[in-house]
Amino acid sequence: MIPEAAAARGLTRASLVLCDGANDMSAPKDRRKAELSFETLNVHKEGAVLFIEISASPMNLLGPELVRDLVSLIQQAEADESVKVLVFKSADPDYFISHVDVTRIKENREPATKLTGEPSLGLLLRYLSASRLVTIAQIEGRVRGVGSEFILACDMRFAALETAIFGQFEPSFGVIPGAGGAQHLARLMGRGRALEVMLSAQDYDADLAERYGWINRALPAAELGDFVKSLAHRIATFPAMGHAVVKERVNAICLPTVEDIRRDSDLFLEGTRTNEFQQLTQHAFENGFQTRAAEIDLAKLVYDMQAKTDL
Amino acid sequence: MIPEAAAARGLTRASLVLCDGANDMSAPKDRRKAELSFETLNVHKEGAVLFIEISASPMNLLGPELVRDLVSLIQQAEADESVKVLVFKSADPDYFISHVDVTRIKENREPATKLTGEPSLGLLLRYLSASRLVTIAQIEGRVRGVGSEFILACDMRFAALETAIFGQFEPSFGVIPGAGGAQHLARLMGRGRALEVMLSAQDYDADLAERYGWINRALPAAELGDFVKSLAHRIATFPAMGHAVVKERVNAICLPTVEDIRRDSDLFLEGTRTNEFQQLTQHAFENGFQTRAAEIDLAKLVYDMQAKTDL
Amino acid sequence: MIPEAAAARGLTRASLVLCDGANDMSAPKDRRKAELSFETLNVHKEGAVLFIEISASPMNLLGPELVRDLVSLIQQAEADESVKVLVFKSADPDYFISHVDVTRIKENREPATKLTGEPSLGLLLRYLSASRLVTIAQIEGRVRGVGSEFILACDMRFAALETAIFGQFEPSFGVIPGAGGAQHLARLMGRGRALEVMLSAQDYDADLAERYGWINRALPAAELGDFVKSLAHRIATFPAMGHAVVKERVNAICLPTVEDIRRDSDLFLEGTRTNEFQQLTQHAFENGFQTRAAEIDLAKLVYDMQAKTDL
Repeated sequence: MIPEAAAARGLTRASLVLCDGANDMSAPKDRRKAELSFETLNVHKEGAVLFIEISASPMNLLGPELVRDLVSLIQQAEADESVKVLVFKSADPDYFISHVDVTRIKENREPATKLTGEPSLGLLLRYLSASRLVTIAQIEGRVRGVGSEFILACDMRFAALETAIFGQFEPSFGVIPGAGGAQHLARLMGRGRALEVMLSAQDYDADLAERYGWINRALPAAELGDFVKSLAHRIATFPAMGHAVVKERVNAICLPTVEDIRRDSDLFLEGTRTNEFQQLTQHAFENGFQTRAAEIDLAKLVYDMQAKTDL
Repeated sequence: MIPEAAAARGLTRASLVLCDGANDMSAPKDRRKAELSFETLNVHKEGAVLFIEISASPMNLLGPELVRDLVSLIQQAEADESVKVLVFKSADPDYFISHVDVTRIKENREPATKLTGEPSLGLLLRYLSASRLVTIAQIEGRVRGVGSEFILACDMRFAALETAIFGQFEPSFGVIPGAGGAQHLARLMGRGRALEVMLSAQDYDADLAERYGWINRALPAAELGDFVKSLAHRIATFPAMGHAVVKERVNAICLPTVEDIRRDSDLFLEGTRTNEFQQLTQHAFENGFQTRAAEIDLAKLVYDMQAKTDL
Repeated sequence: MIPEAAAARGLTRASLVLCDGANDMSAPKDRRKAELSFETLNVHKEGAVLFIEISASPMNLLGPELVRDLVSLIQQAEADESVKVLVFKSADPDYFISHVDVTRIKENREPATKLTGEPSLGLLLRYLSASRLVTIAQIEGRVRGVGSEFILACDMRFAALETAIFGQFEPSFGVIPGAGGAQHLARLMGRGRALEVMLSAQDYDADLAERYGWINRALPAAELGDFVKSLAHRIATFPAMGHAVVKERVNAICLPTVEDIRRDSDLFLEGTRTNEFQQLTQHAFENGFQTRAAEIDLAKLVYDMQAKTDL
């Protein structure tokens, strides 16, 4: 079902490879694989697991192309009963998802609308959380802002001890995270740590992210891929009816409500319309915001630019 | 009060020993002790603490004898104002409570009904959580399925670092844990870790169980018994009115509601009536399910039997 | 605004020093500073951060002088838009806040009323939690009872690994913590650990307090001050509108309700009126309660005095 739909959409740059017998590596390639292409995702199917590599050059900012592809991927994967688990990782070793492309917040809203009828990225992510599909984030590199919100919307999160960096830095621009970050962090790590993470707008390494409950576990980078692959296949082996009922009951307790997500989304947008946010954003761009080099230490960038301003 | 009631029930195999002066070890045994017998529990009283050893050969499966004894123990301990704290441990070094005896799920319902008027093990366990009695689980060996739910219903949980193994593996048979496991795990460890634990149906050692919040603390096996004994006597020394008010207020925040427990219980039973569950169970028995040797690595058993089937 | 108000109140013993240019250390002292005095607080302003040292000899018990000063400080800091972050620490290396002065529970109620219209310390602390001000507790020494509740009401908590000691020991006197401790602990650490902490009335070191989620992090004492100072200034650099919206949304999820705090407050007062509480308190005073030396090991004191009584 996925390949036909993809062919109909005529996408070309990246591809979803469907293997009919992933474990049967001797089978001829033309019989085992069909291709579905996305602009910003490399997708590979093994058994009931889709491995999805985020590849949105130059630094995996979340812009409309990635939003459109994620929506399309989710719709097609949900429609294909042979798919049970999605694993998300990054093609960029430094950036998993860097954050929303601040110059294209409005453009993101139209493709986001397709999934829930509302233009909120938070509701798009919540849709994924509530899906029958089991989702696993395999994190290397920086994951900040809506990137953090994306992994928080996944069902579980594993990160490379040496390289993963986490940040929910929106409050350094005077705004609440717009896609559910505050909701998830407060529920996962409690009031004190959630306030610290957001109000400090600091970078957190994987060890501290694990201790705070931001992720399930930090693992050595050399073991991460095999661990996640094995876990994904293990889960996919078990009955889909178990996935559905467990997700339904856990979500009933822990998943932020639609109203809470919508409210944060609205408050974020309100904040972005203030002069203060506009000025800070402009200032940030003057200091290298949304460039690979400067965002290696984004926590320093957002502080330095304002500490200097205050003087 | 307890000894008379026990005598009236005429139970014989195991015994509840009541010491009138636990600290006075020089007193003649016949004056210090009275016996109350259970079929599957060895009970020993020291001061205001009951030490209860679960002994349901051959592998501490939860069947109607153990349910009946637990109900009886809870009723008698609650009625005896000299009892303030219950410590649960296992007579079997490999299995604390292995899980429900799947061949006797229906049989368990009748004795469970005595405590709450409803035949749900989850409501039985919730009754214990809401009791004035303070309960401590001292865990060595495997504790899976309803065993995990039993310790989660206790007020606190301490486990042997070297030997304790935790699993909430019901979803590998396509069903939700039936006695409150999903409710407790979601509240204790948050959405990501609770989903991981249940969807993976993996075994977790005590160190990881502590990091995830499944247990209060993992302690070296050599220290565990003394630690729990000391803690139990310490708590028992403090006023009962403090126990009651603290439990009431904490339960008001953290204890799953009757409705939530009942709903999971119903969903579990629905799941067990499906062909898929029946077939998986039969398949599991063919692979050694409910035998001591095969369940040493139950996480492997449930995966292997389905991974092979899928090929 | 703060200095004038303080002058009007004519307080003398300690002082709030307001620096107009904290980073400009070359400015003449007389131009940079203004003083506001408190009886039990030493206050120093650097930029938008107030550093508040609790200094209520002889052992930082919470009595009416400290309550009055805290109320006054909060009111003045909230009214001064140049203040964004409050850092609380102790002038006493052994006691951050030891606990409420049990001989003056009634006296505390009048000054507490000024902030919320109700005489509950719990509601006073909740007012601080809900404030636009960001609050950080920097903990060295013992913090027990209402001291623990004070740091739990702060937005974040960092403690010295070598010296900080935590205790919520009220249940050893048969009562629930009166100012929100049960509410916060249950939400931060879950049912099992919250029950353990309160029912055991034990002392917890900073390492275990971090693992249980009682505090954000334990840090080496030698690094603690610099860490907190840097964090406070970092947060203060970011826009106040971000502080407000993040606190509002996180509090909506995690902050105990006014009703819950009020209920615990009432239950605490009911408990203190019982003969059992009165007798235990009297017994505790006979054993050194509310003296520096005896409270170094308060966990031992409360146990020994009752264990002996029981014999």
